[in-house]
Amino acid sequence: MNIWGRNLRLSIFGESHGEAIGIVMDGLPPGFPMDMDYVNFHMARRAPGQSELTTPRKESDQVEILSGVFNGVTTGAPLCGIIRNKNTRSEDYNRDLLRPGSADLVAHIKYKGYNDYRGGGHFSGRLTAPLTFAGSIVRQILEKEDICIGAHILQIGTCRDISFSLGETFSEETGESSMSIDAEQLKALTSMDFPVLDKAREEEMKNVILHAAKEKDSVGGIIECASWGQPAGLGSPFFDSMESSLSSMIFSIPGTKGIEFGEGFRMAGMRGSEANDPLFYDEGKIRMGSNHSGGINGGITNGMPILFRVAFRPTASIGKEQDTVDLSTGENKKIMVTGRHDPCIVPRAVVVVESALALCLMDHMLEAGWKR
Amino acid sequence: MNIWGRNLRLSIFGESHGEAIGIVMDGLPPGFPMDMDYVNFHMARRAPGQSELTTPRKESDQVEILSGVFNGVTTGAPLCGIIRNKNTRSEDYNRDLLRPGSADLVAHIKYKGYNDYRGGGHFSGRLTAPLTFAGSIVRQILEKEDICIGAHILQIGTCRDISFSLGETFSEETGESSMSIDAEQLKALTSMDFPVLDKAREEEMKNVILHAAKEKDSVGGIIECASWGQPAGLGSPFFDSMESSLSSMIFSIPGTKGIEFGEGFRMAGMRGSEANDPLFYDEGKIRMGSNHSGGINGGITNGMPILFRVAFRPTASIGKEQDTVDLSTGENKKIMVTGRHDPCIVPRAVVVVESALALCLMDHMLEAGWKR
Amino acid sequence: MNIWGRNLRLSIFGESHGEAIGIVMDGLPPGFPMDMDYVNFHMARRAPGQSELTTPRKESDQVEILSGVFNGVTTGAPLCGIIRNKNTRSEDYNRDLLRPGSADLVAHIKYKGYNDYRGGGHFSGRLTAPLTFAGSIVRQILEKEDICIGAHILQIGTCRDISFSLGETFSEETGESSMSIDAEQLKALTSMDFPVLDKAREEEMKNVILHAAKEKDSVGGIIECASWGQPAGLGSPFFDSMESSLSSMIFSIPGTKGIEFGEGFRMAGMRGSEANDPLFYDEGKIRMGSNHSGGINGGITNGMPILFRVAFRPTASIGKEQDTVDLSTGENKKIMVTGRHDPCIVPRAVVVVESALALCLMDHMLEAGWKR
Amino acid sequence: MNIWGRNLRLSIFGESHGEAIGIVMDGLPPGFPMDMDYVNFHMARRAPGQSELTTPRKESDQVEILSGVFNGVTTGAPLCGIIRNKNTRSEDYNRDLLRPGSADLVAHIKYKGYNDYRGGGHFSGRLTAPLTFAGSIVRQILEKEDICIGAHILQIGTCRDISFSLGETFSEETGESSMSIDAEQLKALTSMDFPVLDKAREEEMKNVILHAAKEKDSVGGIIECASWGQPAGLGSPFFDSMESSLSSMIFSIPGTKGIEFGEGFRMAGMRGSEANDPLFYDEGKIRMGSNHSGGINGGITNGMPILFRVAFRPTASIGKEQDTVDLSTGENKKIMVTGRHDPCIVPRAVVVVESALALCLMDHMLEAGWKR
Repeated sequence: MNIWGRNLRLSIFGESHGEAIGIVMDGLPPGFPMDMDYVNFHMARRAPGQSELTTPRKESDQVEILSGVFNGVTTGAPLCGIIRNKNTRSEDYNRDLLRPGSADLVAHIKYKGYNDYRGGGHFSGRLTAPLTFAGSIVRQILEKEDICIGAHILQIGTCRDISFSLGETFSEETGESSMSIDAEQLKALTSMDFPVLDKAREEEMKNVILHAAKEKDSVGGIIECASWGQPAGLGSPFFDSMESSLSSMIFSIPGTKGIEFGEGFRMAGMRGSEANDPLFYDEGKIRMGSNHSGGINGGITNGMPILFRVAFRPTASIGKEQDTVDLSTGENKKIMVTGRHDPCIVPRAVVVVESALALCLMDHMLEAGWKR
Repeated sequence: MNIWGRNLRLSIFGESHGEAIGIVMDGLPPGFPMDMDYVNFHMARRAPGQSELTTPRKESDQVEILSGVFNGVTTGAPLCGIIRNKNTRSEDYNRDLLRPGSADLVAHIKYKGYNDYRGGGHFSGRLTAPLTFAGSIVRQILEKEDICIGAHILQIGTCRDISFSLGETFSEETGESSMSIDAEQLKALTSMDFPVLDKAREEEMKNVILHAAKEKDSVGGIIECASWGQPAGLGSPFFDSMESSLSSMIFSIPGTKGIEFGEGFRMAGMRGSEANDPLFYDEGKIRMGSNHSGGINGGITNGMPILFRVAFRPTASIGKEQDTVDLSTGENKKIMVTGRHDPCIVPRAVVVVESALALCLMDHMLEAGWKR
Repeated sequence: MNIWGRNLRLSIFGESHGEAIGIVMDGLPPGFPMDMDYVNFHMARRAPGQSELTTPRKESDQVEILSGVFNGVTTGAPLCGIIRNKNTRSEDYNRDLLRPGSADLVAHIKYKGYNDYRGGGHFSGRLTAPLTFAGSIVRQILEKEDICIGAHILQIGTCRDISFSLGETFSEETGESSMSIDAEQLKALTSMDFPVLDKAREEEMKNVILHAAKEKDSVGGIIECASWGQPAGLGSPFFDSMESSLSSMIFSIPGTKGIEFGEGFRMAGMRGSEANDPLFYDEGKIRMGSNHSGGINGGITNGMPILFRVAFRPTASIGKEQDTVDLSTGENKKIMVTGRHDPCIVPRAVVVVESALALCLMDHMLEAGWKR
Repeated sequence: MNIWGRNLRLSIFGESHGEAIGIVMDGLPPGFPMDMDYVNFHMARRAPGQSELTTPRKESDQVEILSGVFNGVTTGAPLCGIIRNKNTRSEDYNRDLLRPGSADLVAHIKYKGYNDYRGGGHFSGRLTAPLTFAGSIVRQILEKEDICIGAHILQIGTCRDISFSLGETFSEETGESSMSIDAEQLKALTSMDFPVLDKAREEEMKNVILHAAKEKDSVGGIIECASWGQPAGLGSPFFDSMESSLSSMIFSIPGTKGIEFGEGFRMAGMRGSEANDPLFYDEGKIRMGSNHSGGINGGITNGMPILFRVAFRPTASIGKEQDTVDLSTGENKKIMVTGRHDPCIVPRAVVVVESALALCLMDHMLEAGWKR
């Protein structure tokens, strides 16, 4: 299904080597000026062909807005943005020689062989471009509400950055509480080409990618993302919890294999007395002494930064020889995937993960009756 | 939102200490006999009060089916099942003294103080009883299609069971392929009180729980779940991927903090050449030499066992003293949570996680045009 | 599908002769006191067995609220109400001898013979009891916002009441504008047993029904319904227009065959210059000189009373002999439907139509960000 | 909301004078060849500027398909079609001088003045072009299943065509049953410029339109539409009845004020014994002796032709002087609407109504598990 959201409704379409890819956004509030430079800035963060770390397929990824904006301002009617596919080399693709680890096999089964197999078709990571576009529309509105989103590369292969702090941030002695994540930090991350908290890791991580690329192989990684400034009370119990809604979108991003919130899987090994975030009054406001829960309790935001991590698999398409099948002959074959692929999708996925969070927040803010 | 699903639609309701909890299931195929012994068997797996490992609140959790079954057979009309709350001790609960780590604070914010706070109200883990009931209805139908589901406790605190094997299962020498997960194994797990793969871990894990309980504390854990026999081609690209839909339901279960599929977070550290599951023909059928992807590519089942892990936090309600706030006085207070709580929810959550998978599979099978 | 609504979500269930019928309402705002006398008042307007005009099946239609209300006040969590079926005489029903004009045939086809055929099962008009209950919950909230709803019986058989005025209501001479529908009028209608605008029609209409009943036949009719006081701006362009949403619920009511808004079908014969409602400023507020459009333009409320008419078919179940088929023998047969049926469903349907409008208004008010 | 459908999901976008209008269709079955001549044929039936009966705005309404079709065949992935707006004359429009009877006022209220007011913006009847496109995609698939759809102009102003026969069609004497609506008749209607059953009415109706146009006024009308060949069992009880789903889409079409099925409002005046369609076996198949119910019982198709009528209001935009308000000055004003408008939208709406039926049928066929 190509539709997501209850109050902000997204409808995505397109194939990697088709005419165009795009997205329709319905439910945007009217009256918000749209800054196309801002949009282009975030689109560029995801765009391919910009360094030796990414696929050499060069796509300007220029979005044409077809509707929903009038005199540079949102109208409240559905906003459709499309991106033409330009730099395609469809001859690199073969319908019958399935790429292991990709969606080639399942697409063939589900669509009875009629799917557009070129470049993965509708299953391509290229579909994250419209998602990034939608995110960049929504982030402009969120920023007017002083809500910031940022992410960093926590891991490439086995090389790991430091993590956003989740620990105690309140000093009972001084009565001072310091939130380790703040708006400035998140903004700073979005302006980095290769966002890491510990700059010493950047070179190392890049080398992991280049090394894999050199061996015609690929690597995976983990992205850690946070938001700051969103109101408490967003999300619903049960089937529309903030985690439910965010994870449903995150797992739409090709290549994701896991998501965890706050301490996540580490929480399995904790005691309740460690894991619970203590509450206290601070000048009449309720605050928390730590953020192990990642800003969400009972599926609803508690006002602390939302914090989650997403695991990405190594790119399935690699030049190394692999075992596969040939549908045309019914025989076992070897494949060395040609075409132009990222040796690691994580650096380009950072802005996509941020976009997913932005879209979720907006959906839930609209549900909670935020001005519109 | 209390509604989940596209083709199988669930609507859940109830509070921990209200009149009753229940669920409406719409979209069930007509003509399937319902075995109430089977239902009761799975309900008992989740029911409280059965051993020293769980809360002493004793609830028989007898389901009354109000509609959708006629002469013991599904009619195709909405099936509603309700469970009366009986063994409540509401005097243990206090609206104003918030339990850290629980949904007390966010419920108060979202519902402006009108929420039923007794026992967590609508946020209570007790709402997983109707989910388990719904799962037990659907599993009867799945089993007729030779689809099995099972789960085990992978971790309690830091004590870890062995994992379902994801490794190479095809021997090129002998031409034999052995899938490590099979129907018998999964069925065997569902008949265990405390399902683990390595029986030696059972005592140890139970001790971890009892030890925490003795210290008026709690522990978390991880459940690993799998299905066997489901068809390939279930799920949709993008927003209705099998992972999206399953994770959206899993994060509805109170206490979940993470989910991962196949190798999951471990995949971040793998090379593509390791992570890709090789394809080969085996007597005319396409098979895979490993299952690193957990039975899902591009959001769609590939025919291999679906395999995922869910992280649970330690129970928030503990007897140990914690810092919190009192809404009635606006003052910081200490709290030692009374009431009857599980020192670890993981053992009772096993059947809930299995139910979530069953419901997801049925929803996607109906979407794929499975006979009805 | 048993689910309706986007912001107020209804999930309905039950069969005429099953254990119980009921409804789950999700999305209700928290903090509204629920007056059960008010609920019972509206339930009694629909309840059977109250006069010679209706079926002799006597059902008290007492609703038991299972969730969503705490200390007499809505909590914001899903509210489930159920009604036990008591006065059933299932022996009157026959699975195989299909009742012409009823859903017997299509239910048999769609559910492959597994449907609960007794009393129409899930297709029974009895399912409008939960809808009326839901309406009575929502109307309490609407009335606090000074929004009133009322309806009258416009036609029984060919006997016709006068219509709510749609004509010119603004006098350019005196500068006075009089809205022909007002809150008092609508309230007065809801307190009548047999609501008509022209009291002279009441006896005549009743006679039409009794006459048909005597001849073991049935009659249809038309209900005209209006709301007063609802804000302008409710509804959305295209697929969620106020008419789309209201008609989708109205056609859920068994026996409905048509709906029209404002002048409705009569508008086909009008000129634009007659049909357009002129706009003018009245003490700084924009008002309309007539209400031909029935309070809706472009799918969105314009502030004038919403006005629509619903056509009901004559009850399908009649005692008169009719041609039909017997599924058990595959032969043509005669049928004289026994069982207890209304000779005309219109009088009891008045409150159901009002309820549909109330539920639609609430759904769209929540969508428009009304306080919650 | 711009989204419609459960199994076939439509997402519509665009404004009358914006860059483009379009639609995304998700859920189409893979493997169906798309005939663009067929699409263009139906698009031309709706296109403006073709005779003196319609607006002189000339739009070729050429659809560009951006996705979902590969090698001329549907892929099963979302299909997006866009139509560029070309022949716009935005200077004819004024934001502040509201056109009575139009959506100008409600659009201003709902979107706080930010709506694209040019040509009605997103509220324009021009949005029915994408709907017609979507219908023409789906009709190709339906026709392969021998399902036909056709409609005729039943009324223009007060000039009325004969109606599709609903009466007795089975002769007990001869044992012959003749269905008055058949595939050939429906196909023949779609090939007429001005489809009427009684050709004598054509000239008269056209004169009614031309006469109104000459007086700078407009007229309304009624369209009668039918399908032939669709299977029994489509639709669901309650909220997803065939009538619910069809009426929800019909009322999305700008200018509609009423819908009725089968005998519709006339059924209010009938006896049950007249209105019920008798059942009989005809060579082992169950058939009906009449079609008063319009092919639908209990919200589900019974196999007889689906038959319904839609009332259209006269075009709101007329050249005649009318009373209105000027938002810029807060004063009462006179308006004579300039711009290019149809004196009657009914002739161009015929294919739009047919498209709505086609899309509904496909949605319900997919729900019923039709091959895909």
